[in-house]
Amino acid sequence: MNTILFVFAFLSSYTFHVISSATDFCVADLSLPKTPSGSYPCKPEANVTVDDFVFSGLVEGKPVAPFNSGLTAATVANLPGLNGLDIAAARVDIGVNGTVPIHSHPDASELIIIVEGEVTVGFITPAKAYVKSVKPSDVIVIPKGLLHFVINSGKGKAVTFGALSSSSPGVHVADYLLFGNDLSTSIVAQTTLLDEAQIKKLKDVFGGKA
Amino acid sequence: MNTILFVFAFLSSYTFHVISSATDFCVADLSLPKTPSGSYPCKPEANVTVDDFVFSGLVEGKPVAPFNSGLTAATVANLPGLNGLDIAAARVDIGVNGTVPIHSHPDASELIIIVEGEVTVGFITPAKAYVKSVKPSDVIVIPKGLLHFVINSGKGKAVTFGALSSSSPGVHVADYLLFGNDLSTSIVAQTTLLDEAQIKKLKDVFGGKA
Amino acid sequence: MNTILFVFAFLSSYTFHVISSATDFCVADLSLPKTPSGSYPCKPEANVTVDDFVFSGLVEGKPVAPFNSGLTAATVANLPGLNGLDIAAARVDIGVNGTVPIHSHPDASELIIIVEGEVTVGFITPAKAYVKSVKPSDVIVIPKGLLHFVINSGKGKAVTFGALSSSSPGVHVADYLLFGNDLSTSIVAQTTLLDEAQIKKLKDVFGGKA
Amino acid sequence: MNTILFVFAFLSSYTFHVISSATDFCVADLSLPKTPSGSYPCKPEANVTVDDFVFSGLVEGKPVAPFNSGLTAATVANLPGLNGLDIAAARVDIGVNGTVPIHSHPDASELIIIVEGEVTVGFITPAKAYVKSVKPSDVIVIPKGLLHFVINSGKGKAVTFGALSSSSPGVHVADYLLFGNDLSTSIVAQTTLLDEAQIKKLKDVFGGKA
Amino acid sequence: MNTILFVFAFLSSYTFHVISSATDFCVADLSLPKTPSGSYPCKPEANVTVDDFVFSGLVEGKPVAPFNSGLTAATVANLPGLNGLDIAAARVDIGVNGTVPIHSHPDASELIIIVEGEVTVGFITPAKAYVKSVKPSDVIVIPKGLLHFVINSGKGKAVTFGALSSSSPGVHVADYLLFGNDLSTSIVAQTTLLDEAQIKKLKDVFGGKA
Amino acid sequence: MNTILFVFAFLSSYTFHVISSATDFCVADLSLPKTPSGSYPCKPEANVTVDDFVFSGLVEGKPVAPFNSGLTAATVANLPGLNGLDIAAARVDIGVNGTVPIHSHPDASELIIIVEGEVTVGFITPAKAYVKSVKPSDVIVIPKGLLHFVINSGKGKAVTFGALSSSSPGVHVADYLLFGNDLSTSIVAQTTLLDEAQIKKLKDVFGGKA
Repeated sequence: MNTILFVFAFLSSYTFHVISSATDFCVADLSLPKTPSGSYPCKPEANVTVDDFVFSGLVEGKPVAPFNSGLTAATVANLPGLNGLDIAAARVDIGVNGTVPIHSHPDASELIIIVEGEVTVGFITPAKAYVKSVKPSDVIVIPKGLLHFVINSGKGKAVTFGALSSSSPGVHVADYLLFGNDLSTSIVAQTTLLDEAQIKKLKDVFGGKA
Repeated sequence: MNTILFVFAFLSSYTFHVISSATDFCVADLSLPKTPSGSYPCKPEANVTVDDFVFSGLVEGKPVAPFNSGLTAATVANLPGLNGLDIAAARVDIGVNGTVPIHSHPDASELIIIVEGEVTVGFITPAKAYVKSVKPSDVIVIPKGLLHFVINSGKGKAVTFGALSSSSPGVHVADYLLFGNDLSTSIVAQTTLLDEAQIKKLKDVFGGKA
Repeated sequence: MNTILFVFAFLSSYTFHVISSATDFCVADLSLPKTPSGSYPCKPEANVTVDDFVFSGLVEGKPVAPFNSGLTAATVANLPGLNGLDIAAARVDIGVNGTVPIHSHPDASELIIIVEGEVTVGFITPAKAYVKSVKPSDVIVIPKGLLHFVINSGKGKAVTFGALSSSSPGVHVADYLLFGNDLSTSIVAQTTLLDEAQIKKLKDVFGGKA
Repeated sequence: MNTILFVFAFLSSYTFHVISSATDFCVADLSLPKTPSGSYPCKPEANVTVDDFVFSGLVEGKPVAPFNSGLTAATVANLPGLNGLDIAAARVDIGVNGTVPIHSHPDASELIIIVEGEVTVGFITPAKAYVKSVKPSDVIVIPKGLLHFVINSGKGKAVTFGALSSSSPGVHVADYLLFGNDLSTSIVAQTTLLDEAQIKKLKDVFGGKA
Repeated sequence: MNTILFVFAFLSSYTFHVISSATDFCVADLSLPKTPSGSYPCKPEANVTVDDFVFSGLVEGKPVAPFNSGLTAATVANLPGLNGLDIAAARVDIGVNGTVPIHSHPDASELIIIVEGEVTVGFITPAKAYVKSVKPSDVIVIPKGLLHFVINSGKGKAVTFGALSSSSPGVHVADYLLFGNDLSTSIVAQTTLLDEAQIKKLKDVFGGKA
Repeated sequence: MNTILFVFAFLSSYTFHVISSATDFCVADLSLPKTPSGSYPCKPEANVTVDDFVFSGLVEGKPVAPFNSGLTAATVANLPGLNGLDIAAARVDIGVNGTVPIHSHPDASELIIIVEGEVTVGFITPAKAYVKSVKPSDVIVIPKGLLHFVINSGKGKAVTFGALSSSSPGVHVADYLLFGNDLSTSIVAQTTLLDEAQIKKLKDVFGGKA
C-alpha cells in the first residue's frame, strides 16, 4: 500500500512538471484554421480516441475517364491523427491501358509500392526523364516536387500503394493546371507556345473556362 | 534552325546561373560518412541512373521465432534514391498467433496499411494505450517515437505495409534493448524492478550477455 | 530637438514596415490549443513581462519510492517564455542506492550536468549499451529518443541538472508504459515474452490495471 | 458529355481525399495570434484574392537623420501572402554621406542587390570584419544574425534592394538597443565599459530613458 | 598592459570552449559533394575572404527566343557565401511582347520586385489562377512549388528582380520538361492527352528527342 | 538452441534491411569539413566509445579582467557526441561586482540556471529591456539571438549553468565585435555615432586595431 502511495507521489512529481506539457501526438482539430506547414492545432487530449488514428477507406479507387485510373488516400483530412507527422498514404488503381497523368506533389516525396500488375513509372527533370517498368515487390521513389506519371504497361489492371512525405500532400495534375481552371487560352498559349486549338480542345476535356 | 540556336542560348542562360546548382534529387553516396540527419552526401549526377530509385526486394518477410513474424524494408541502405527524402517503406508478414513485438522508431512516424488478415495494433503513452483491431483497407498511424506492437488476431496469416517518415528509420525492439545486448542483469533489475530470474530467462531468448 | 524629431521619423520608418511584424520572442498563451511541434500561439506582446521568462521552482526533487529519486523541471508549462525555443531544464535528486529508471524522451536529447555525488549513466542501442560512471564537472549527453538511466553509484545523495532540446519534453518511463496504464497483461506478455506473473507483480507496483 | 462527366468523377476522386487538405499557400490571418516561427494561421481560402500576394509600397525610403537613410519593406505585416514562405524584401535609400547603422536581423540572412550609387557594405564576426565596396549589378550576402552596416561611399545617393530569409525579419539596430530604450545608463556602462557621458549623449540622440 | 593581458586571457577562455566551434557562416566548398538540402560542406575559415560573399554579375539577362526574355542569377554556384542561407536572387529582362514561360521552383518561394515596365504575373493552383498586372514599386509573391509566369504587358521592355528562398533554386520550365528532353512522344501523349503532332512541333522548338 | 538460432534469423531479418541504415547517434568526425548547420559528418560507429559522449571539464571558469567573469563550455568541439543534437552547456563564474558583458548567441537560445549568488539578468529588444534579479533555484530564458547580460548583484561570487539550443553556439560580445577586431575607428563612428575618442579607448581595452 505504501508502495503504491509512493509511486503516485513519484509519478506526480514527474507528471506535474514534465508530462503535463509533453506532446506524444497532436490530433488535428480540423475546425480551427490551419498553419503554413499544413498542420492544424491539436484537439484536446481528453477528446482523443484510438479512432482518430484509424481510417477505414483505403479501398479501390474506381478507374474513370479520361485516364482510366482512380485514387483513394489517407490524409489529415480523413485521418486527423496524421497531423504534424509528415506522412500520408494513397492507393491507385489503373485499368487496362490506363495512366496516372503527369503530376507533381509540390510538398511531398512519394514512395510507390507495386502491388498488382506491371506499370511504367517515370519522373522528369530538365536534363532527363527517369523511366522504369516495375512489378509487384518493387518500390520506386519520386523525389519531392518532380513531375511524374504511371502507365499501366501490363495486360491486366494495376494496383499501387503510395507513401507520401506530407500529411496533406497537394496533387498538381499538369492538365488540370493548364486546362482545367480559369487561366485564359491566350495566356496558356503565350507562356507555353501550345497552339490555341490544342488548348481549347483540352480545356473541353478538363473542364477549363474558354 | 535559328529557333533551336536561340533555344540553346536561352536554355544556357537559365542553365549557367541557376540549374547548374539546383538539387532535383540527391542519391546517397553510401561510401561517404553520413550526417546527423541520417542522410549521405550526393553521388555525382552523372553517375545516377533510374535504378538508384528502385528497390526490387520488398518481398515477404519470412516469419521466424520467437514472435513468428518477419520484416523486409526499403531504406536508404538498399534504395539510395531515398536519401534526404524522409520516407521509407516496410512489409511485415505475421504467422498465425504471431506478433510484432513492442518497439519504437525513435525518428519516424509509421502509417500501417493492412493488406491481408486481421491484426490488433496498439501504441502506448504514459497515460493510456490506444489499441484497435484492423483489417484490409484500414490504415492506422503510430506517432513518432511511441512504443507500439501488432498482434495477429485473425485466423490466417497477416500482411501489412508500413510507410515511415525517415529514410533510415531505427527499430528499437524493447526486448532486444533490455535483454539482447551487453547491459548487465543487475542494471536492468535496478532500473526496471524486473526480477533477476526473469531478466536472465529473457537474456537467454534474446541473446544478451549474462 | 530637431534631432530627436528626426530620430522618431527614422525609427518609425523602420518600425512601420519591419519591426511591427518581427518576432523577438513568442511567450506561450497556454489557454490556446497547442500545435504539432508542442508550441503554443504567442500571447500579445503588450501582456508580456520579464516574469514570463523566469521560473523560480527548480528546487530539489524530493526522492520517493520505488526508485528513491525525484524530479523538478522548467518546461513551457511553467515557464511560458520557453515557447518555441527548443530548450528546457530539469533537476534530479537521487537518494542513496536510488536510480532514475530506464526511460526515454521521444522528442529531446539530454545533456546531464553532474552537480553532486557519483552516478552511473547509461543509454542503450540495439547493438550496445553505453555506460559510464561520472562525477561533478562531468557532463554526459543522451542522444534523442534513446532509452537511458541513472544509478546513484556513490555513497551519498546525487544531484544532476539536465538540459533538454525541447521545451515540452516527454518522459517515457519503460515501467510506466508497460505496467502503469490500461495495457492488458496478455498483450504485454504476447509482445514482450515477459511472464504473466512478473507483469502482474509490476502492475501492482506501478499502478496498472490488471 | 460523358467525357466531362467522367472527368468530374475523376477529379472528385482526387479532390475528396487529397486536394481538400492540401496547402498550396497560407495567407496570414493577421487577426489571429502568431506562432513561434513568426507565421500566422491561414485565412480561409475562399477569402483569398490575388491582392493578398501583392504589395504596392516598395517605394523610396525617404532618408532621415541621424543616419540620412530610409527603409521600406514588404513583410508579412503588409503582404500577408508571404506567410510561412521565409522571404521578404526591403528597399533602402541612402543620402550623400549617409549610412545604414550597424544592425542585425536575428532571424534572417540578407542578400543585398546594389541598384544605384556606390556603397561600402560590411559584416562583423568576433575574429574579423568583412568589408567591401560594391556597385550596381553587384550583390553581397550577410549571413544570418551577424551585425552589418552600409555606408554610402559614392558621390550621389545610393539605392539597394534587400532579400531577407524571413517573412517577418527583426531589425536590431545596435544604437537603439543600447541607447534607445529603458535600459539604464549604469547597466550599459557596466556591461560594455562605455563611459557614462558617452551613453547619456547617445541616449539623447536615440531617445532612450536617462 | 596588464589590462590587455587579462583581456586575452578572458578572450581565450571564451574562445577555447565556445567560439572555436561556432558557425558564423559556412562558405561552400564547391569541390566537395553536396548534401540533400542542396548545401555544401564549409570551406576552411582561414581561406574565406569577403569576395566569397560578393557576386558581380547580376547584370541584364539578354532576352532571347523563343520567349524574348533572359535571366541572370546569384546562387550558391557563383556566390558560395550563400551556402546554407536559403536565399538567392535573380534578374529577369523581358523584351516587348516577351514572357517568362510557365515554370516552377520545386524548392523555393519567389518574391518578384518590379523595377521597370509593366508585367502581368500569375501563379496557378488546381482550383484557380491568380493573375495580376503589376508595375514598379509593386512586389508579388509566388508560393513555393507553384507554376507561374510573367508576361510583358507594357509597351517597353520590363525588368524584375526576384528573391528566392533557396540558395540553389531549381527552374522547371514546363515546356523543357515536356518537350526538351528524352521523354518519348508517346508517353507525353498518353499522360497529358496532348496531340502527337503538337508534341512533335514543340519538341522541335525546345530541342527534345523525337 | 533452436530458439537462439531463430532469434538470430529474426534479428538478422530486422538488421539487414532496417537497422543497418539507422542513426541512433552521429558522433562528430571533427577532422572532416563541417556543414552549414554547424554539425560534422559522423565518425564510423565502430570507433565510437562512451567517452565520445562525456566531457570532464565543465569546471569553474576563472574570472578575469576586464569583466571579472569566466566561462567554460561543453560544445561539439570538446564533446563530439553532441553533434547534431542542438544542445550545449556552459558554466559561468562571476566575481564580486563582475559581469558577463552584453552579448548574443546568433544561433541559440539560452536557459540560465542560477546555482550560487545573486545576479541581475537582462535581455534587450528594440522596444524594451527585460531585466530581473534572480537567485539559486531560479531559471531565466534568453530567446535566440537577443543581446543579453548578467551582472553579479549579490555580495559574493556567482555561479550559473547555461543550457544552449545549439551544439556549437557562437558568442558575440558587443565590445569584441565593435572594438576587438580590424573594423576601423571611422567606420564604427559613422555607423554608431560613438565618439572616436571613446572608440579608441575601448579598442585599447579589447585589443582592436586602431
